[in-house]
Order: sequence, then C-alpha cells, then structure tokens
Amino acid sequence: MAARVLAIYSHPADPAAFDAYYAQTHIPIAKKIPGLRSYAISNGGVHDAGGASSPFYLVAELGFDSLEAIQQAMQSPEGAATVADLANFAQGGVTVSFYETKDV
Amino acid sequence: MAARVLAIYSHPADPAAFDAYYAQTHIPIAKKIPGLRSYAISNGGVHDAGGASSPFYLVAELGFDSLEAIQQAMQSPEGAATVADLANFAQGGVTVSFYETKDV
Repeated sequence: MAARVLAIYSHPADPAAFDAYYAQTHIPIAKKIPGLRSYAISNGGVHDAGGASSPFYLVAELGFDSLEAIQQAMQSPEGAATVADLANFAQGGVTVSFYETKDV
Repeated sequence: MAARVLAIYSHPADPAAFDAYYAQTHIPIAKKIPGLRSYAISNGGVHDAGGASSPFYLVAELGFDSLEAIQQAMQSPEGAATVADLANFAQGGVTVSFYETKDV
C-alpha cells in the first residue's frame, strides 16, 4: 500500500519569485514532514495533453506509506508548518489532495 | 529522469458505471501504451487536504522514462485509443497533464 499527497499550483503572478521561494524555502520545510518517503516535482513546466495551455504551473508529488501516515503527517508540527507556508508564495492558488494509491 | 502523465477525473454522474468501465475496459486499453512503466490510481476516493470535498473523483498516475517517451506514446495507436476511450466514460470531465519529474 502507498499513498500520495498531490499539490497542484496554479500559475503565479511572478513565476521567478515563486520558483525561488519554492526551491529555497518551501522544499526544505516540506522535506521535514514525518513519514515522507518521496518528493518529486514537475520540472520544466506542465503540459496539457489536449494541446491547450495547462492551468497548472507546478505539480508536487509527495509519497507516504499509507493514508494513516498522511493524516498523522498533516497533524504534525512539520506538516502544519508546510501548509502554513503555502500562504507565503502560492497566492496564485493551490489544490492539495491526498489518496491511497493502488497499482493496476 | 522520469516523466508523468496525470489524468484527473471529475465526479461522474454515475459513479458505479464509471468504476466498472474504468476497471474492466479503460485500464486494459491504457496498459497497452508503449513505454508505460507504472500505472497507479487513487483507491477509495480523493480527499481534499483543506477539509472541503474534493472536486476530483479519480486520479491516475502513469509513469514513463522521459517526456520524449510520453510524446511517442501519445502518437502511438495505443495512446490514441486510450485518449479516444475517454469519451466513453469521462463525461464528467478529465484533465490530462504531463511533465518531467525531478526528485527534490
């Protein structure tokens, strides 16, 4: 079993400022989340498979062992700090979802 | 290097019909896509981390070796068949995005 947190960021007003803050500040904060097993982000932009321009600016995929591990992580001080940090750079909007994953 | 296709489905009008079609028909079609390295789906629903109900019904994560592999896959007959099949069950809406991933 595994589970995923997916953070989908909309386009920011100032992409350069977003990129700098995300890399230098947000990643180090998020990497302290207890139970985090993997952390990957989209690199070089998100493409819309239909050929339109994507409404998504950045996708972050955070892997955990289980749904329970995610729920515990979100209740931890480190998880709360990561969520609280979103307000510092994600003014363009962010959708944070989580779910158990199943290989098919 | 790795790359991801992310298919995000909105809530269908008939969830039971969607689930049956997805499992019995769409997965077997999508699994024939050349270059597909991994295929996982959300299991048991998608949760919104903010506590609201998620606009997402199902998330499918398809892994490939590279952005080039995805572009080749989309141009293949199997990739085209997978995209064409969306119209048979994803009337609620689906966003298909792809991107290179970077571990951070």
